[in-house]
Amino acid sequence: MRADFRSDTVTQPSAAMRAVMLDVPVGDDVLDGDPTVRLLEDEAAAWLGKPRALFVPSGTMANQVALGAWTRPGDEIVCQRWSHITTYEGGAPGYLHGVQTLTIGNRSGRMDPAEVAEAIRPNFIHCPSTALICLEQTHNVAGGVVIPMEEFAAVAAVGRERGIPVHLDGARLANAVVASGISAPDWTAHVDSVSLCLSKGLGAPVGSIVAGDDEFIERAMRVRKRLGGWMRQAGFLASAARMALRDNVSRMTLDHALARKLGERLGTLPGLTCDASAIETNMAMVHVAPEMMTAAAFAEALAAHDVHVLPMGPQVLRFVTHLDVGSPQLEQLVTAAQAVTSEHAPVA
Amino acid sequence: MRADFRSDTVTQPSAAMRAVMLDVPVGDDVLDGDPTVRLLEDEAAAWLGKPRALFVPSGTMANQVALGAWTRPGDEIVCQRWSHITTYEGGAPGYLHGVQTLTIGNRSGRMDPAEVAEAIRPNFIHCPSTALICLEQTHNVAGGVVIPMEEFAAVAAVGRERGIPVHLDGARLANAVVASGISAPDWTAHVDSVSLCLSKGLGAPVGSIVAGDDEFIERAMRVRKRLGGWMRQAGFLASAARMALRDNVSRMTLDHALARKLGERLGTLPGLTCDASAIETNMAMVHVAPEMMTAAAFAEALAAHDVHVLPMGPQVLRFVTHLDVGSPQLEQLVTAAQAVTSEHAPVA
Amino acid sequence: MRADFRSDTVTQPSAAMRAVMLDVPVGDDVLDGDPTVRLLEDEAAAWLGKPRALFVPSGTMANQVALGAWTRPGDEIVCQRWSHITTYEGGAPGYLHGVQTLTIGNRSGRMDPAEVAEAIRPNFIHCPSTALICLEQTHNVAGGVVIPMEEFAAVAAVGRERGIPVHLDGARLANAVVASGISAPDWTAHVDSVSLCLSKGLGAPVGSIVAGDDEFIERAMRVRKRLGGWMRQAGFLASAARMALRDNVSRMTLDHALARKLGERLGTLPGLTCDASAIETNMAMVHVAPEMMTAAAFAEALAAHDVHVLPMGPQVLRFVTHLDVGSPQLEQLVTAAQAVTSEHAPVA
Amino acid sequence: MRADFRSDTVTQPSAAMRAVMLDVPVGDDVLDGDPTVRLLEDEAAAWLGKPRALFVPSGTMANQVALGAWTRPGDEIVCQRWSHITTYEGGAPGYLHGVQTLTIGNRSGRMDPAEVAEAIRPNFIHCPSTALICLEQTHNVAGGVVIPMEEFAAVAAVGRERGIPVHLDGARLANAVVASGISAPDWTAHVDSVSLCLSKGLGAPVGSIVAGDDEFIERAMRVRKRLGGWMRQAGFLASAARMALRDNVSRMTLDHALARKLGERLGTLPGLTCDASAIETNMAMVHVAPEMMTAAAFAEALAAHDVHVLPMGPQVLRFVTHLDVGSPQLEQLVTAAQAVTSEHAPVA
Repeated sequence: MRADFRSDTVTQPSAAMRAVMLDVPVGDDVLDGDPTVRLLEDEAAAWLGKPRALFVPSGTMANQVALGAWTRPGDEIVCQRWSHITTYEGGAPGYLHGVQTLTIGNRSGRMDPAEVAEAIRPNFIHCPSTALICLEQTHNVAGGVVIPMEEFAAVAAVGRERGIPVHLDGARLANAVVASGISAPDWTAHVDSVSLCLSKGLGAPVGSIVAGDDEFIERAMRVRKRLGGWMRQAGFLASAARMALRDNVSRMTLDHALARKLGERLGTLPGLTCDASAIETNMAMVHVAPEMMTAAAFAEALAAHDVHVLPMGPQVLRFVTHLDVGSPQLEQLVTAAQAVTSEHAPVA
Repeated sequence: MRADFRSDTVTQPSAAMRAVMLDVPVGDDVLDGDPTVRLLEDEAAAWLGKPRALFVPSGTMANQVALGAWTRPGDEIVCQRWSHITTYEGGAPGYLHGVQTLTIGNRSGRMDPAEVAEAIRPNFIHCPSTALICLEQTHNVAGGVVIPMEEFAAVAAVGRERGIPVHLDGARLANAVVASGISAPDWTAHVDSVSLCLSKGLGAPVGSIVAGDDEFIERAMRVRKRLGGWMRQAGFLASAARMALRDNVSRMTLDHALARKLGERLGTLPGLTCDASAIETNMAMVHVAPEMMTAAAFAEALAAHDVHVLPMGPQVLRFVTHLDVGSPQLEQLVTAAQAVTSEHAPVA
Repeated sequence: MRADFRSDTVTQPSAAMRAVMLDVPVGDDVLDGDPTVRLLEDEAAAWLGKPRALFVPSGTMANQVALGAWTRPGDEIVCQRWSHITTYEGGAPGYLHGVQTLTIGNRSGRMDPAEVAEAIRPNFIHCPSTALICLEQTHNVAGGVVIPMEEFAAVAAVGRERGIPVHLDGARLANAVVASGISAPDWTAHVDSVSLCLSKGLGAPVGSIVAGDDEFIERAMRVRKRLGGWMRQAGFLASAARMALRDNVSRMTLDHALARKLGERLGTLPGLTCDASAIETNMAMVHVAPEMMTAAAFAEALAAHDVHVLPMGPQVLRFVTHLDVGSPQLEQLVTAAQAVTSEHAPVA
Repeated sequence: MRADFRSDTVTQPSAAMRAVMLDVPVGDDVLDGDPTVRLLEDEAAAWLGKPRALFVPSGTMANQVALGAWTRPGDEIVCQRWSHITTYEGGAPGYLHGVQTLTIGNRSGRMDPAEVAEAIRPNFIHCPSTALICLEQTHNVAGGVVIPMEEFAAVAAVGRERGIPVHLDGARLANAVVASGISAPDWTAHVDSVSLCLSKGLGAPVGSIVAGDDEFIERAMRVRKRLGGWMRQAGFLASAARMALRDNVSRMTLDHALARKLGERLGTLPGLTCDASAIETNMAMVHVAPEMMTAAAFAEALAAHDVHVLPMGPQVLRFVTHLDVGSPQLEQLVTAAQAVTSEHAPVA
C-alpha cells in the first residue's frame, strides 16, 4: 500500500467526485461564461465572504492574479519571509509584475505588526510605493500554523490605516477555519482579496479561487487573460470543486487529528523529535537528529517502505495529512519509521 | 435551436468524450506527473513531430510560454501585423516578457520573407536583439487562410540563416494540415517550437499544447510555473484532449466544406459579399455593405433568430464552423440572414 | 584635417560654450533643484511651447521617460516602423516598460493616418490597450525628412479623437523648425509630450529635454528617478545647453544648405547617387552602387582620407552636417570621394 | 551663512575643480569614447581594484546597471533590509529588472552570514533563482557605519561558495577606506562588482562609477544604453571626477572627525542623544526626545537659523559632514541647536 504524506495535493478524486464531473452543463467561459464555473465562483465567493470570485488553474496563479490586480511595476509588497508567494512561486512577483518584495519575520510564519507598520514606505520619490501587504493562512513553511486572529487583524489593520490593500494567501484557509472555529468571512473581513486552493486539502483535481470586490475582479480578469489562465469549458473542473467545497471542509478535523497523532507517535522514536502540541492543522514537522541522518536520507529510507514524505530543510520532514491517508497509512508509516530509526538511531 | 458560428471554441464535449474523462488514471502533475497528461504530451509531441510537449490551460499560455522560453527583456520579436500573439493576448509579450514587437504585413495574414529578413537587427548595442520570428497557421484574423508552404518555409529560413528561433502559433494547425494535405511534422520541421489548441476545432474542453526540443521544454516548464499554468490532476482534461487529437482531425474536412458552402450561400444575399473561393478552412469572412448596416448590427439582428456570429471589423463578420454546426444550423443561418437582408438591404 | 560626417553628436563645444560652463551657479538638483538646470528647463519648456520640461542625460532617456510616464505594462504603443524609439533604443520599450510596439509604415518615415487609426485597439479584454502614439520629427532613418504638417497633424488627431496621448520624438525638432518655418510650439500643439536633444545639431555636450504638462512631468520625474537619470550639480551641462538653445537654432540653415550641396556634389560622382532635392535638413542619404562596393567599404575607404561617415544600410551612407563641418570639410570629402570612386567605379 | 548638513551631495565644486572642467579634451563617448571619460574610468578601475569601470550619471544608475548585468526577471536578490538599493532607488529592482528582493537584517545595517546562507535558494523549479547578494559600505541608513571586514568577507564568501555573484554598493566606499585603513581593492577583492559615487563625499558635481571584469562591463554597457545613461561629451564631468578621486579621498578624515565632534556636542544638549562613539565616518545620527518634538520639527526649527538637516525617522536626524562644512558651520549648528532645545526641551 502506498502511504503518501508528501502533500495534500496528491489526493485522487473519489468515485463520487468523478461522477459529478460527468453530467454537468459546460460552456465557453471566455465567450459566455461556463455555467458551472459561474456556480462555483458564486459559491466560493459566498463561502469566502467576498462579493465576487474567479476560478483559475492553480494556487500560484490565484496569488499572482491578485498581485497583478493590486500593483504596478516599481511598487513594493510586504511579505512574510517564508511566504509561499516569495518562496514557491518561481520569482513571479518580480517576473510578472515588476514588484520588489520586503520580507519580514522568521520560520515561525509570524509577522510583527509593528515591523509591518515600519515597512510601509513614505510617499517619497526615492522610495518604492508600498502597494500590498500579504498574509498567509495557514502558513505552509511554518508547518501549517494558524496565525492568531489578534496578529492577523493587527497586520491587516496596518494596511487599512495606511490605505494599503491586504491580500490573503488562503490556499489552506479551510484548514484554518476548521482548526480555529473562526469562519472564512470572519477571517477575510480583514483583507481585500483572498485566494483559496481547491486541489489541496479540499481534494478537487485542479484549480484555485481568487476573490474580492467587483473592481478587483475586473482587474484580476485582465491579469488572468494575460497570464493565459482563462480556460474554455472548465465546468468539469468546477463541478468537482463545488463538491469539494461543499463536502470536504468539515472533515478536515480528521486530517488535523491524524497529523497530531502522527507527530506524537513519530516524536517518541529515537532520533526523531516533534512538538506535537504545536500541530494545529494537517502538517507535522518532524526533526531528524543530524547525528542519525539527513531529512533527505530519512525520506529516501521511508520510500523503500512505500511511505512518502518531503524534506522541508536539511533536518526537517513535513508530513501532510489529507483525504487519502488514515489510520492504516499512519500505522504503515510508524512501522517504517521504527525500522529506519532502529537501524540508524545513534546510541544514546 | 441555437446555431453558434462565433468560434470553434464553443463546442460541447460529446457524451463519448465525457465518458473518457470519467475513468482515467490521474496524478499530481506537479509532484509525480499525471499519467494521462503524460500520454497526451507524448501523443501530441508525436503528432506535431517534436521531441517533447507540454500541456497548458489555454492557447494564450501556450504561445506565451514559448515566448518566455525564447526571449529576454529588451529583445524584439517579429510578428505578423494581425497575429493572435500581438492582437488577442492582452499585450502579454510586453507585460510578461518585456519584449517589443515588430509587426509586418497586412490583413491578408501574409509576411514577405524579404521584409522579415530586413527586420532582423544587426548585433549593435543600440538595437534590440531579434530573438524570435512568429508564424501563425492557419491565420485567424485573415480568415483561417493557410499560409502557403513556400512562404512559410521562406520566412522560417530567414530565422535559420540568422540563427533566430521560429515559433509557430499553430492554434489551428490541424485545420491547415487537413486543408493542405501537408502533415503537421512537415509544417513544424521548419520551426523550433509550436503551439496547438485542443479546445478549438478539435473539440476538447480545455487546453493547449506547446512543443519543441528538450532544452526548450525545460525552459518552458519554468515559465509555465511562473505563469501559474501548472495544474495538479489535469488528467481529466488530458483524457478528453487525447480523444480530440485522435478522432477529430480528419473530420475537419466537413467543417471546411460547410464554411465554403456558408460563404457561397451568404454571398448571394443582397448587401452581403463573400469571396467563397478564398475559404480554405473553417472560417468565412462575410462583408456587410456599409449602406445596409454595420457588422455589429447584423450580428445583433441574427441573434434574434438564435444565430450567433462575431464581427471582425466594422463591416466584416467571421463565421466559424466546428463540431456543433452542420447543415441544419446552416439552413437556420441562411433563413435568418435572408430575413435580415430582405428587411434592411439597400434598394439596388 | 578630420572631417566627421558621422553624426551631429560629434560636435566639440566651442570656447565660448566652455566659458559659460565655468562660471555658473549650481546646486544639488535632487535636493533643492540646480538653479541653472531650472533656467534651462524653463527656457526649453517655453521654446517647446509646453508648461514644463525636465533635463535628462540622453535622448534615449528623454523618450523612455515619456514612455514610462504614459504607459503601463501590457499596453501597446504605435510607432513608425523605422522610428528611433523602436530601432535605436536597445529594446527599451519592452525592457523598461513592458509595452509591445505596433510598427507602421516604411523607410520613408511616413505613417498613414488611416493606418494609425486602424491600429488603435478596441476596449476589449483580449487586446492590449493602445496607450501612446509616437511621432518623430525630423525622422532620422528616413534621412532627416520633415514629416509634413498635414500628415503630422492628422496622425496626432487620431490620438486626440480616441483619447490616446501622442509623444513626439523631437530629438531633431530644431532642424524641422528651421527647415519648415513652423515654430516648435506650432508643432507641439498637436502632441502631449515632446523630447528635444541638446547634444545633436544644437551642439551642447550632454543632455536632452522632455516636456509636457504638470501631471506628465510629475510622472516623468518618478520614471527618471528609477532609471537613474537624476543628476546632482548638472548646472554645468545645463549652462552649455542654454547657450545651445539660444544661439544654435537659426544657424542650422547653414547645416541644411551644406547637406544639400553635399548631396548634389556626391550625386554627380560615378557609382554614387543622391536625390539632393529630397534633402530637407542636415542629412544626405547617398546610395553606393552595389556593383562598385558596399556602403561599409566606401566608409572605410573614406576614412583613409580622414573623412568619416556611417552606413545606414548595405548600400546607403548617411552624411550629417553640423557645427563642426563647413566648406573645407565638404571639399575634403568630395576630393576623397572622387579618389575612391575613380579607383572603384564600375566602367559604364 | 548657510550650514548644510543634509547630505554630502550638496557640495559646490571648488574653483580649482571648475577650472579643470574648462580645458579638457572631450569626444562623443557613444561613438568614439570620450578621452577624459576613458581616463576617469581607467583611474577609477585601478582605484577600485577591478579590471574595468563605467561612468554613469548617478549612484542609482550605477547600482541598477549592475543589477541588470547580473540578473534575469524571476531572479531574487538578497539585500540588507535598509539597503539603499531597496529603500531609495524607487523600486527599480522590480521595475527595471523584474527581480524580487529578499531583505535581511535590521537598522544596524548588518547581515548575519548564516542568514544570508539560508537565503540562497535551492535549484528547484518552484523557487526563484538567487542571482545576486548585495552589500553596502558604508551603510547609509545605519548611519555611515563600516561593516567590519570579518562580516563583509563572510557574507561575500557565501556568494563565492554557492556560485552567486556579490555586488557592493560602494557609494561611500571611500569613507570606509579612510575610516578602516583597508584599501578599496582589499574590500573589493571579495565582490564581483562595485559602485562608487563621485558626487557624494568626493565632491564631484555629477556621476558614479560601476566596476567589474570585462564580461560584466560588456553586459553593463547594454543595460546603461537601455536606461538612457550613455552620455555624449561627458568629459567635463569626468574631469571634475578625476580631481575628486585624486584629491578628496584622504581629506575625508576631516569629515569623520567633524562628524564625531558634532555628535559629541549635540549629544550633550537636553532632549538630544547621540552615541558619538558609534560614529565611524561622516554621519551623526542624533535622536530627538519624543517628549520634546519630532525630528521633522527639529529640522524645521534649525532651518530658521539657516542650518539644514534631514530626518531619518520620526525621532532621528542624520547630520552629514562634507567638503563644505567645517568648524564654523559646526558652531552655527550647535548655537542653533542650543536655541531650539533651550526653548523646547522637556523640564527634567
